[in-house]
Amino acid sequence: MVRAATIPAPKRPVEVREYPRPDLEDGAALLRTLFSEVCGTDLHLQQGLLAETPYPLIPGHSTVGILEEVRGDVRDVQGRPLNPGDVVTFLDVHATCGRCWFCLVAKASTRCPERKVYGITYGADDGLLGGWSEYVYLKPGVRIIRLPEFLAPRTVIGGGCGLPTALHAVERSDVLLGQTVLVQGTGPVGLSAIALSRLRGPYRIIAIGAPRGRLEAARAMGADLCLDLDATTVAERRAAVLNATDGRGVDVAIEATGDPLAIPEGLDLLRDNGTYTVVGQYTDHGPVELNPHVQINKKHVDIRGVWGIDYSHLHRAVLLQERYNDRFRWEKLITHEFDLDGANEAIESVRSGEAIKAVIRPWPAE
Amino acid sequence: MVRAATIPAPKRPVEVREYPRPDLEDGAALLRTLFSEVCGTDLHLQQGLLAETPYPLIPGHSTVGILEEVRGDVRDVQGRPLNPGDVVTFLDVHATCGRCWFCLVAKASTRCPERKVYGITYGADDGLLGGWSEYVYLKPGVRIIRLPEFLAPRTVIGGGCGLPTALHAVERSDVLLGQTVLVQGTGPVGLSAIALSRLRGPYRIIAIGAPRGRLEAARAMGADLCLDLDATTVAERRAAVLNATDGRGVDVAIEATGDPLAIPEGLDLLRDNGTYTVVGQYTDHGPVELNPHVQINKKHVDIRGVWGIDYSHLHRAVLLQERYNDRFRWEKLITHEFDLDGANEAIESVRSGEAIKAVIRPWPAE
Amino acid sequence: MVRAATIPAPKRPVEVREYPRPDLEDGAALLRTLFSEVCGTDLHLQQGLLAETPYPLIPGHSTVGILEEVRGDVRDVQGRPLNPGDVVTFLDVHATCGRCWFCLVAKASTRCPERKVYGITYGADDGLLGGWSEYVYLKPGVRIIRLPEFLAPRTVIGGGCGLPTALHAVERSDVLLGQTVLVQGTGPVGLSAIALSRLRGPYRIIAIGAPRGRLEAARAMGADLCLDLDATTVAERRAAVLNATDGRGVDVAIEATGDPLAIPEGLDLLRDNGTYTVVGQYTDHGPVELNPHVQINKKHVDIRGVWGIDYSHLHRAVLLQERYNDRFRWEKLITHEFDLDGANEAIESVRSGEAIKAVIRPWPAE
Amino acid sequence: MVRAATIPAPKRPVEVREYPRPDLEDGAALLRTLFSEVCGTDLHLQQGLLAETPYPLIPGHSTVGILEEVRGDVRDVQGRPLNPGDVVTFLDVHATCGRCWFCLVAKASTRCPERKVYGITYGADDGLLGGWSEYVYLKPGVRIIRLPEFLAPRTVIGGGCGLPTALHAVERSDVLLGQTVLVQGTGPVGLSAIALSRLRGPYRIIAIGAPRGRLEAARAMGADLCLDLDATTVAERRAAVLNATDGRGVDVAIEATGDPLAIPEGLDLLRDNGTYTVVGQYTDHGPVELNPHVQINKKHVDIRGVWGIDYSHLHRAVLLQERYNDRFRWEKLITHEFDLDGANEAIESVRSGEAIKAVIRPWPAE
Repeated sequence: MVRAATIPAPKRPVEVREYPRPDLEDGAALLRTLFSEVCGTDLHLQQGLLAETPYPLIPGHSTVGILEEVRGDVRDVQGRPLNPGDVVTFLDVHATCGRCWFCLVAKASTRCPERKVYGITYGADDGLLGGWSEYVYLKPGVRIIRLPEFLAPRTVIGGGCGLPTALHAVERSDVLLGQTVLVQGTGPVGLSAIALSRLRGPYRIIAIGAPRGRLEAARAMGADLCLDLDATTVAERRAAVLNATDGRGVDVAIEATGDPLAIPEGLDLLRDNGTYTVVGQYTDHGPVELNPHVQINKKHVDIRGVWGIDYSHLHRAVLLQERYNDRFRWEKLITHEFDLDGANEAIESVRSGEAIKAVIRPWPAE
Repeated sequence: MVRAATIPAPKRPVEVREYPRPDLEDGAALLRTLFSEVCGTDLHLQQGLLAETPYPLIPGHSTVGILEEVRGDVRDVQGRPLNPGDVVTFLDVHATCGRCWFCLVAKASTRCPERKVYGITYGADDGLLGGWSEYVYLKPGVRIIRLPEFLAPRTVIGGGCGLPTALHAVERSDVLLGQTVLVQGTGPVGLSAIALSRLRGPYRIIAIGAPRGRLEAARAMGADLCLDLDATTVAERRAAVLNATDGRGVDVAIEATGDPLAIPEGLDLLRDNGTYTVVGQYTDHGPVELNPHVQINKKHVDIRGVWGIDYSHLHRAVLLQERYNDRFRWEKLITHEFDLDGANEAIESVRSGEAIKAVIRPWPAE
Repeated sequence: MVRAATIPAPKRPVEVREYPRPDLEDGAALLRTLFSEVCGTDLHLQQGLLAETPYPLIPGHSTVGILEEVRGDVRDVQGRPLNPGDVVTFLDVHATCGRCWFCLVAKASTRCPERKVYGITYGADDGLLGGWSEYVYLKPGVRIIRLPEFLAPRTVIGGGCGLPTALHAVERSDVLLGQTVLVQGTGPVGLSAIALSRLRGPYRIIAIGAPRGRLEAARAMGADLCLDLDATTVAERRAAVLNATDGRGVDVAIEATGDPLAIPEGLDLLRDNGTYTVVGQYTDHGPVELNPHVQINKKHVDIRGVWGIDYSHLHRAVLLQERYNDRFRWEKLITHEFDLDGANEAIESVRSGEAIKAVIRPWPAE
Repeated sequence: MVRAATIPAPKRPVEVREYPRPDLEDGAALLRTLFSEVCGTDLHLQQGLLAETPYPLIPGHSTVGILEEVRGDVRDVQGRPLNPGDVVTFLDVHATCGRCWFCLVAKASTRCPERKVYGITYGADDGLLGGWSEYVYLKPGVRIIRLPEFLAPRTVIGGGCGLPTALHAVERSDVLLGQTVLVQGTGPVGLSAIALSRLRGPYRIIAIGAPRGRLEAARAMGADLCLDLDATTVAERRAAVLNATDGRGVDVAIEATGDPLAIPEGLDLLRDNGTYTVVGQYTDHGPVELNPHVQINKKHVDIRGVWGIDYSHLHRAVLLQERYNDRFRWEKLITHEFDLDGANEAIESVRSGEAIKAVIRPWPAE
């Protein structure tokens, strides 16, 4: 039997349940989990905040492990065969159809209606399709990446889902060489957005976040100026940002907070004709007031929403971790580690903001 | 003496005043006005809604006339000399500095702080710098365009300031061949946005506006489906747009209404990963509520504010009018014509929505 | 049995062969051919000019017909079922894998190594996979489009493969409103490039081509100025283009000739910082000399190669034909029509340049 | 009197001449030269390879110095006054007109026909308008940048004109996070292109160049793999690049060699649908053969020429040097230093390839 932490229903504590070990269909693989991430979405799933969640659910959409079994010819995107014993991660997004209007005409695959996500829109009734489990069933067509030789599983899970999401956001933000970037939010997405903005050759990176421990992480990831959300007013932050930008505001701002109020504040911190990217509003926390004359039209601004990732984001995130893991220590973002029985504590560590990054480790360390 | 309609102070009726005929400095020219436009901005100037307006003010920022006098070597952008007798229009934006951070580093000349606009930020104390006047003083450096042989002054003023503004908006909207475009608003900017969207090879154009006369103009400009704002509810319009787009919403929407409430409605009519351009919020009408999760982040949308125009927009607007004036009859948008003494009536015709386009004609027709 | 025109081997005449009528696997369909196109690529296939062609080969990659049989659940990209009796066309490109580096990381699906093309890289041994046949076997996964109600099969085949190819090229060319476009070549791709450039709101379109009949077609498709390749020298054409562009050259040029010498000529006809799109070099006709200082670096030019199409190009091509078939009469490009036994004459009509567009019609008109 | 190294005529040795110290017109400034660069263009000017050079000529277009005198109100782009004693550099490009078709419609200011360049298109008869002089006359309108506090003049001149040129090239190349970049050429432009590509977050940078000393500099600037042009064949380099890129070729290649033959080689080292930027062909070295089918059309490539710089490139180059001078030691590129009397030796050090970067220092070090 396979043990997996399971959310039985909205607002109910996670329970460890046992599932039969699955037989593999052709093209499938079985992953022995090393680490699976605990992220804000997992908290929201437990709180019942996401629409149409298929409870009972095994959470965990960013996962690293060792291939235990492979059935048939399973290959990575370069066509190289994947074999038992390989240390891998995989794209949680599965079943993007490749035949609908969004996939083929709009080329907006993250809006494909067939798209399924491990640990979020696949439920426990669909199989072992979440990472908070001793084993994960990798269905045929799941995009699997073998970790490069010198990239540790712990580094990859330290990046987690926040890193490719941040990559998507930074890419949509079109940071130019020598520009000043503001990142609002110092959770996992914000911290990776800081690191990846640093990789785009900016003049300066400003971060707004809290609590203090996360601001230290922000500085380690490359922020030049950190503003403590808990210790400053909106007016003080505005004064600090204008002071750092010759009174103009930043060239690019990336919102990674989850708080609707961050958006009007961020637009006010942006220079005229700047770019504002919204990647933190993954859950519906209600509306917010904007002034379309002042904050959009006269500002001549670009505002860009960023939903989800596709394979290219994960692929390049892994390459960047391999290349830059001496500069950005994603593994150091991991502040909390739990076994399956600790899943409720894991969620609580994220809810309270105590953890920067919590991970589930289903098996004892060897 | 030169007669010019003048707004003496905010909320005061327009008066015709007399000014001395100016001597020309080197590089300047004197324009004998044929037509000058009455647009929504003129109404807002009279109502005192724009900050820092230099009253007394001669309105009229889009103007066509005949060069009466030219002092020294005055040329168009192709280097061809401009001579008395030439029928011309000119860019109302003057004195963009070409040496500030916005001009040189951001390349966002519409946000240059030195920028002055004829009839809006130049007041009567600065000279004859508005079009509701028998003569307009064209300072050195004003960008003047001689009208092509087969382009009538009436056609140019029928396009007015709305046409190059719409060109800027349509260009920022990146309409692809075969897409469906929604234009919200059927005033001068909206009607030209319909015409110019038609020139981008869309599959279908949907317009939302009122009153009925403007919807007829919208149809003449190329809208395939017109929704009457006065006769439909938000829900009905949404049903109609979804019905016309296989349930997805439009690919591109252009807001040209002046009403903040148009923005949440427009975002709801846009498909996921569509482009939303805001060009109608030229005056501050207060804030509006948006839902950042639903309308920005999950929608994976691009929102683009558009402020002002530069010379390239006017230049190409004139080329397009020359080339396509048989297809789009901008001169037919002119429903009201006034002499200088009728300036208050002209403003009223715009305020009431009775006029599609009103123009001032300082001299009797010959 | 099914009759199909077949190229047995390179440089050998086409023969009509008989094949068994295929049984359909699940998800497949059988198309009764109405029209299939004869294009330059078919000529090159017969001449043996393309590498790795799987002879014997049934040519015909752009085809319109009626669904005769459908096995299982076959749908279009909007999810609507396709049924026997539907008049359809389909994307010749099949089997783009959706799992390789080019599909997933580069998002350059036209460079996917798994990609197969009906009538070009599928041979007769693979099945009835070319359009010069009474029936075409539509494999599972082939992207099928039902023709809109008022779009005639003849119009669609008049556009043929040249129309979506031109759409791809025009889209890569970023024509701005009011610009001047040069199209080099007045074969099917060039003529559709003229039509689609016309749909982008240019100031003027210049075409270079031959013979005279094609120049008339170019004019009908929207060219403002046609230069006869047979009756002018390079110097004369250059003088004419510079004269039409204030001495600067065109803003955008699209090469659709197949002749390497067109490229240096086209670059010389382009203005500094213009865009040059190469879509006509589908067959290797050897090298050509360019001057990188004069024609690339100092010119500050963008040169863009365009290979193949994806589904979005065909989808929008059909929408555009539906919407604009009163303006651009693609069906009038069809100058020659042959039955299967006339396939060799069909190829000859293309080789000689006598045909603008030749089509194969396997069944007698009803 | 002011001493300045002067090229009297094509192919003639440089002579030190004396010129009267100029009076300043309003808005002008006098720069006491600290360092002026010796670059490949200076060599070509001396060899008479550039068309329309106004001999006699004082070379030196990239220069750092101390403001000796300022007449009237001279400010930087942020509006801050510039004063005697300020350590500054300036944009060599002057007199971009801001009123021609290229400036205003095409927005391609590097193609403005009025544009003048210090030390290249301004001759000695125009004034002290080159940097190989004790003093440089900064005309009104010259864009002057005060060096930030912690940026040494030596670092700035170590970057020289190659750095902003490389910035323009890297920006046109659209390097994505995690891509592999090839830089062809390890002269000053190539070395800065390596550094700036490194700042864009690539997976890997490959450099091709010679001699050995420059390859060491390339490695110091961030190249991961250096291929020695003198010690490898075209085939060996191709094998090495394909081996480093899973057989595909690089995502982006930047040509900075001056050798036309680099272009076909570079295109062959680029993956399908990659981007190829040509910035090294500043002098006409004649034509080269390309295969348009293989190297452009089927490759689905983007080729981008890059001519000159504008103010934004210099502005951000200075910001980047301030921010990243601990990572990239531009001052270490300076291998040779000469006084005015050593100008002919300076040119020879560049011609022979012995110098990576040579500079002229008109005054003795203090």
